[in-house]
Amino acid sequence: MNLVSRAGDRLLEVEEDCRLCEEVGMASEEGSGSEVPLLTSKDVEKAERRERVACVALCVLLLLNVVGFIGRQREGPPRSEWLGKAVRDAELAAMELCSGHGHVFVDTNEVSADGKPVCECHECFTGPDCSVSMGECVADVDVGDPLLFEEYWKSNPDLGTVVIPGWYRMSYFANDAQRMFYTDALTASIRELHALAGNAVTEGRYIAVGNGAMQLINAIVRGLALQDTDAVSPVVATAPYYNMYYTQTSFLDSRHYGWAGEPEYGHEDSTKRGVQIQLIASPNNPTATIQDVPSDFKGHVVYDYAYYWPHLTPITKAADSDIMVFTFSKITGHAGNRIGWAILKDFDLYQKVSQYVFLSTGGVSHDAQLRATQIMRDVIKSYVGTTPLGSQGIFHFGHEVLESRRARMQAILGKSTRFTLQELKPEYCNFFGKISAPSPAYAWIHCNREEDVNCNEVMKTAGIIGRPGGEFGSSDRYVRFSMLKRQANFEILATHLLNLVSQTCENGE
Amino acid sequence: MNLVSRAGDRLLEVEEDCRLCEEVGMASEEGSGSEVPLLTSKDVEKAERRERVACVALCVLLLLNVVGFIGRQREGPPRSEWLGKAVRDAELAAMELCSGHGHVFVDTNEVSADGKPVCECHECFTGPDCSVSMGECVADVDVGDPLLFEEYWKSNPDLGTVVIPGWYRMSYFANDAQRMFYTDALTASIRELHALAGNAVTEGRYIAVGNGAMQLINAIVRGLALQDTDAVSPVVATAPYYNMYYTQTSFLDSRHYGWAGEPEYGHEDSTKRGVQIQLIASPNNPTATIQDVPSDFKGHVVYDYAYYWPHLTPITKAADSDIMVFTFSKITGHAGNRIGWAILKDFDLYQKVSQYVFLSTGGVSHDAQLRATQIMRDVIKSYVGTTPLGSQGIFHFGHEVLESRRARMQAILGKSTRFTLQELKPEYCNFFGKISAPSPAYAWIHCNREEDVNCNEVMKTAGIIGRPGGEFGSSDRYVRFSMLKRQANFEILATHLLNLVSQTCENGE
Repeated sequence: MNLVSRAGDRLLEVEEDCRLCEEVGMASEEGSGSEVPLLTSKDVEKAERRERVACVALCVLLLLNVVGFIGRQREGPPRSEWLGKAVRDAELAAMELCSGHGHVFVDTNEVSADGKPVCECHECFTGPDCSVSMGECVADVDVGDPLLFEEYWKSNPDLGTVVIPGWYRMSYFANDAQRMFYTDALTASIRELHALAGNAVTEGRYIAVGNGAMQLINAIVRGLALQDTDAVSPVVATAPYYNMYYTQTSFLDSRHYGWAGEPEYGHEDSTKRGVQIQLIASPNNPTATIQDVPSDFKGHVVYDYAYYWPHLTPITKAADSDIMVFTFSKITGHAGNRIGWAILKDFDLYQKVSQYVFLSTGGVSHDAQLRATQIMRDVIKSYVGTTPLGSQGIFHFGHEVLESRRARMQAILGKSTRFTLQELKPEYCNFFGKISAPSPAYAWIHCNREEDVNCNEVMKTAGIIGRPGGEFGSSDRYVRFSMLKRQANFEILATHLLNLVSQTCENGE
Repeated sequence: MNLVSRAGDRLLEVEEDCRLCEEVGMASEEGSGSEVPLLTSKDVEKAERRERVACVALCVLLLLNVVGFIGRQREGPPRSEWLGKAVRDAELAAMELCSGHGHVFVDTNEVSADGKPVCECHECFTGPDCSVSMGECVADVDVGDPLLFEEYWKSNPDLGTVVIPGWYRMSYFANDAQRMFYTDALTASIRELHALAGNAVTEGRYIAVGNGAMQLINAIVRGLALQDTDAVSPVVATAPYYNMYYTQTSFLDSRHYGWAGEPEYGHEDSTKRGVQIQLIASPNNPTATIQDVPSDFKGHVVYDYAYYWPHLTPITKAADSDIMVFTFSKITGHAGNRIGWAILKDFDLYQKVSQYVFLSTGGVSHDAQLRATQIMRDVIKSYVGTTPLGSQGIFHFGHEVLESRRARMQAILGKSTRFTLQELKPEYCNFFGKISAPSPAYAWIHCNREEDVNCNEVMKTAGIIGRPGGEFGSSDRYVRFSMLKRQANFEILATHLLNLVSQTCENGE
């Protein structure tokens, strides 16, 4: 081992030092055993001083070598040869700061004339080091890209890092002898994370993993539809609903199920229409309100709990629905790490969902599973046994940022009667152990003026791109803004919105 | 920076050394300037000797400190604090050898009573350190799990390792400012790898990336089917064909296309039947023969080139079909890293395929893209500028292993008239620059005895699990054996097969 050999080198140095000490020792003996008695007092003193000096010098150096050795051990085992290059590459990439408005990653492909990697700049920034602001830049708050969390991971670089060797889980199976598609570590971390957040029951439940929540929702819908082979199962959702429910269902266009819009209530299971499959997000996307399916609904319910986490909504109970879907992206911000999971009570459905994930994508990349596991483990570690309890944890960070953004949106829009921001009330959060102010992932805004039939178009005139209410099955008098992007993006949004509202106020509203 | 501070420490040590040298120097001056003339010859000599010794000692130690410092710089920048734990975890996991028949990974979840991670044993091995062979173990050669490459990556640990920090490409987009789903680095590496292997034209082609080749094949089939909306497009393949073509097509059960078995030739494009979409693997899975679609086929052709790499078949030309699909798993053995790509001439199809990957799985995990990129970069590096050219490269390793396995299968089955192994001829390989002996990924075996109607059942009696010919749309008189698994698995296969053949021979065949 490298550790051993390095230690060996140091010990050799130390032995060397000792031999030299002996040599000087010898010399000093000879010196004291001088044949010239006249010299005793002064010269022997001199000689002794020289020897003392020499030995002090040797001991100090010996000490420095030993201290140096111990010091290096404290940093943990020295880097192994095989890791050297990968670690060095990661360090060098991380050293490129890109003015805080961009990144260099180990796989950044573009290089400058002098062979240095070129910063990948965030939106609205440019220049070789991303230091140039694009000035009047549009505030693109369409996609719910959870980039606000980037700051957390950048400022806690010791958390969430993984090192993956070439031979890591190469098989199609996460565990090839046991023919498992998901690592035990991932499902165990998922259960631990839910236990920490207190947002879902996992004991005695099956956990199926997929490439993001949407693959799982389709896998579940298909599995449920196959239980009712006589009809094309109607997939339903109450508007405003997450637009991807409609988009994906109609896009994949299956023989077994199809989009049917609003749910019907009071029906019996076996109608001509087939057994309804209702998709419902709670908190809702886009409105951020907690939702429940009325008791007179007959059919299957798929609960999308993507946003049921302490930083996004007060946790009031551990959810325990038959079918619950979660996504990794909205918890820690790792949307580019395509991991979602379904917590299921029914084993048959669990098998159907797993089979779908296997047959459509050959399972879920093991490297993605490992990275999600490591990130979850570090999130858990940042909460367990810390004082004050996890104040440095990501849920606290996320809630603080989103609560302040919500407050600013309210302050800006409160100035005007032209726009109305969705109402959300503070509530007691079991996780934080206190009343928690609203910190929604999205602002859902209504345009009140009669002529503002398309609220998103109104916003566009002010340099803001939201997502029109129509996409959520609602009216275009509504628009959704993402609160989840980087701070720079939110600041541009706030500026543009303030200007719009100010103009409006000047017009006497 | 850690580097700077560490360097600083060493420099302090060096300064310290110098001050000490001066002190000794002082002493020696005083010594030579002695007030006792009688002492000149012998004592001054002694004094000088002492000073020489002392200074030699100091200089040697000084040297050791400096050498130690430089040595550490050679290893590259010292590990940054933020990487410490991740690197240490990877090193510790890698140190667990598990008798060469198992692994401990950083996410190995099971721990023993003493808190140590428990080895994840390969099939047919057990015990805390996987040293116990299960004896009469079945040779499972059903799945084409490319585990033979594990040995290559284990013995070249400096290749293919990635370090991924928490903030790596968190957005839904691989490049969020440019709204790209694939990293430039991945597509650039794919093009370079094809240029190295000489197996496909990529210049001026579009490259779409997916979660494995099967997701892409479905995305392509769907895209092509949508160009012919009047009919349900028939998906066809000539038996024996890769069984997943049928399984996935019938499983996903689209409104737009459906499985139709054997292709029809001579038809015009627009038949009642709709435009045929032919799936064809070349080399073929299971037979390993090079295939081409006859010129009188009317319709779309999707070429699956999963096995068109130098270690699996002689490369005779750069493929240049309109639609070509490749998978990462059969090149480097990383089946658990779900990366496949399609090389397309048509931009519209490229867009449809990318849209499908986005809507069904939200794209491809960025961590998986990074790992595939790093592995490809290292494969390319192992070939470019090495002498003898890339003899240490993975294509050479893979070909050597598979060629010897093929030879052994031939030697064993050649002893018997009961079984016939598929015939494959050596051919000139442009990549190796010489005649290349067959090194197929699969053995395709025919049972000749009249009563052996199910060849896989015959093999089962001998403790071998293959994949029955029927699954490939062929006769069950055939069976497919995977040649791609670990050496231990192949040895068990060879032993069982030899026993079976020996019994047969004793029966006078």
